[in-house]
Amino acid sequence: MTTTIKDIGEIELLNRIKKFMRDKQIDDDVAEIKTRKKNLLINTDLLVEKIHFCESISDAKDIGWKCIATNVSDLICSGSVKIISFSVGLVLPPSTDWKWVEELYEGMLVAIQEFGGEIIGGDCTSGETKMISITAVGEMNKARLHRGNALPGDYIVSTGYHGLSRLGLALLRSEELPSTDKISPELINRAIQAHKRPYPALKELKALISCKPILTSWRAAGTDSSDGLIESIRGICQSSNCQAVLSKSSLLKDPHWPKNPNWNDWVLYGGEDYELILSLPKKWAEKLSKQLKSARIIGFTRKGKPKIFWDNLEEINIDQASLFQHF
Amino acid sequence: MTTTIKDIGEIELLNRIKKFMRDKQIDDDVAEIKTRKKNLLINTDLLVEKIHFCESISDAKDIGWKCIATNVSDLICSGSVKIISFSVGLVLPPSTDWKWVEELYEGMLVAIQEFGGEIIGGDCTSGETKMISITAVGEMNKARLHRGNALPGDYIVSTGYHGLSRLGLALLRSEELPSTDKISPELINRAIQAHKRPYPALKELKALISCKPILTSWRAAGTDSSDGLIESIRGICQSSNCQAVLSKSSLLKDPHWPKNPNWNDWVLYGGEDYELILSLPKKWAEKLSKQLKSARIIGFTRKGKPKIFWDNLEEINIDQASLFQHF
Repeated sequence: MTTTIKDIGEIELLNRIKKFMRDKQIDDDVAEIKTRKKNLLINTDLLVEKIHFCESISDAKDIGWKCIATNVSDLICSGSVKIISFSVGLVLPPSTDWKWVEELYEGMLVAIQEFGGEIIGGDCTSGETKMISITAVGEMNKARLHRGNALPGDYIVSTGYHGLSRLGLALLRSEELPSTDKISPELINRAIQAHKRPYPALKELKALISCKPILTSWRAAGTDSSDGLIESIRGICQSSNCQAVLSKSSLLKDPHWPKNPNWNDWVLYGGEDYELILSLPKKWAEKLSKQLKSARIIGFTRKGKPKIFWDNLEEINIDQASLFQHF
Repeated sequence: MTTTIKDIGEIELLNRIKKFMRDKQIDDDVAEIKTRKKNLLINTDLLVEKIHFCESISDAKDIGWKCIATNVSDLICSGSVKIISFSVGLVLPPSTDWKWVEELYEGMLVAIQEFGGEIIGGDCTSGETKMISITAVGEMNKARLHRGNALPGDYIVSTGYHGLSRLGLALLRSEELPSTDKISPELINRAIQAHKRPYPALKELKALISCKPILTSWRAAGTDSSDGLIESIRGICQSSNCQAVLSKSSLLKDPHWPKNPNWNDWVLYGGEDYELILSLPKKWAEKLSKQLKSARIIGFTRKGKPKIFWDNLEEINIDQASLFQHF
């Protein structure tokens, strides 16, 4: 027998949810943020059922993890190494099983243990479709990454593999794969893990900060690859008004990734892999790629209207159809 | 001919929305909050179509105003007099008319001009039902109001009329009224205005702060009457573990409010009127009710398990059916 949130009623539901929040968040709707005299970064992400998550392929704990992880990734790729708080807004159909809600929060708390912060408040109301709105707050850091901070002559660095999450999604949905090449059980595992439990690049950001050459300024452009590798580089070029030239042979793929070129699109446009994509002064980029095993210089920036090229100067078509389009 | 947001496409939609944000919020998902070395208050509110707003009775500008106003009210009733920022999360069906989105933001900006702050970021995605998630941030103040701050022997103060918004909703929906008593055109106007353009008690909070007697501490309990007068007092009693005794003759009603007792329920349980409900040391309460024309002492607190009584000691039944139950 399941207990729906309609059975529980609103007042009891809110009481139960408050058990997942920090101690003092008991009686008020509004929460306090102790700023420790630092400026803050704030980010809101919406996850809508059937658009951003699907219960047939992700359980509530995975969804809870993922909505914290995606939000944390946005703060990280802006330069925040200290995550402070999360406000959680939930829209739930009255027929929702309470167990689902409980497991959602449990998944969030597991991610929060990993990346820091605490749930400090939120709102909960009914609606036809499940929707999760999370607003995360982090501390600002000396390394304030902006998409618009790139300069011609930078190196472009990626901190890890691309395409895994897209493959994981395809496997979970039993989609047709780009080719009939056999894929290893290890790759299958890593891909499904990457899709269900994406891991924001906190360690990678810390490495970036710790390896800055003393004589180099803190100027750095950054974003995460949540919308796909090419889209994240397009964003940097657009905001910084420069071009990018990418080295085809330097793209980061899982060692078991099929060699068949049909698989390249998922590496370039797959999205949801949450690596840091950085445009850095050359010395800083070189130091980072030496110090951080997973990181690699994948290209450079140059003057010119926002465009992306391969190193053979073939232009990369920013094919809108491959991007995440929600409308 | 209408232009839907599907016609516009996601990238252009986000560009258009960013025009309503503060100047620098152009290229990044994450926004900065300058804390001026003060601690902050944060609040998230969700508004779901057909549950919190209905397009047949409110236009987009009204809805925009209202979702800022309700959020501001939560910050005000926690003691914040300086509103800093809003993050706006929008879920919109692809068929949504762009004009509706534009007017929604225009309505928000009108309210923001009135109460302070700026839109600093957010998220936008598609979904079957319109949903607005707003996270507001304000500065913390010496007068930090909590529901749980009441002590036995306080006076309970309300800063204005109750029931108007509920009447406005009934009129807009052509509901049957509590009696056939004639209601004045002035009352009709005020009720519809109260429902469509609720006005948070910022002036009233400032009066509360400015009139604190020097020898009285900053301890004060407060909430807004957004869920109804009785529900707000129930919340204070519950969180402060005390009882409230209310004076029937002191309840604040619009001068044109019908005398027929059938109309009392809307005063007590109507909700969405956004007055401050305070439990204060007696001297502070007396000073406020003298200084602020709209404010009145409507009862007092005493020791005992959380309950509410009339001054003839008849217990007020906290009828859950009268409260806002979303599930």
